[in-house]
Amino acid sequence: MIARTPHAPYYAVIFTSIMTEGESGYNEASERMMELVSQQEGFLGMESARNEIGITVSYWESIEAIKNWKMHMEHTEVREKGRSVWYKNFKVRICKVEREYEFEKNKS
Amino acid sequence: MIARTPHAPYYAVIFTSIMTEGESGYNEASERMMELVSQQEGFLGMESARNEIGITVSYWESIEAIKNWKMHMEHTEVREKGRSVWYKNFKVRICKVEREYEFEKNKS
Repeated sequence: MIARTPHAPYYAVIFTSIMTEGESGYNEASERMMELVSQQEGFLGMESARNEIGITVSYWESIEAIKNWKMHMEHTEVREKGRSVWYKNFKVRICKVEREYEFEKNKS
Repeated sequence: MIARTPHAPYYAVIFTSIMTEGESGYNEASERMMELVSQQEGFLGMESARNEIGITVSYWESIEAIKNWKMHMEHTEVREKGRSVWYKNFKVRICKVEREYEFEKNKS
């Protein structure tokens, strides 16, 4: 689903990754993180797709909210496992969303 | 591939989309746009993945460079076709990348 974010400005974290072959436990962890992140204060939504690379974009009210999620204990543990097991390579970009527009076919 | 962007700040355009069933001509147009965009002044790289939704993130030196690409004639024609044929729904977010970090396994 396309995230229903409020009007700009708000923040986006673009997480781009290439996985290793070792996917053990990844799906469970990913579901658990989705459950946790959606309870975080200031979380606005998330979009995710993967083929050769994975792209996950999460949206946030503030930089503060992003920092709080980064410091979340269970999330920190899972990130460690990401580095040691699941990910070959990743990049994280913290962005301020300045403008946006959207299109919906047959929207009256 | 994960885009090898320079140090922040720079800009990102997050394009999130849901396609219709009518994919006629989409792949050709997509390849042609990739060829054109990579020749644009100020273009820094692109990342793309699709399953239920598609996410394409392009990176740019400046807002100016993003505007120039938006006004590119052939790109404008293709965007019209995107609205009339290929996309059911999309959202475009223009962002300033403020910070970034990366991980590469076994990087010495």
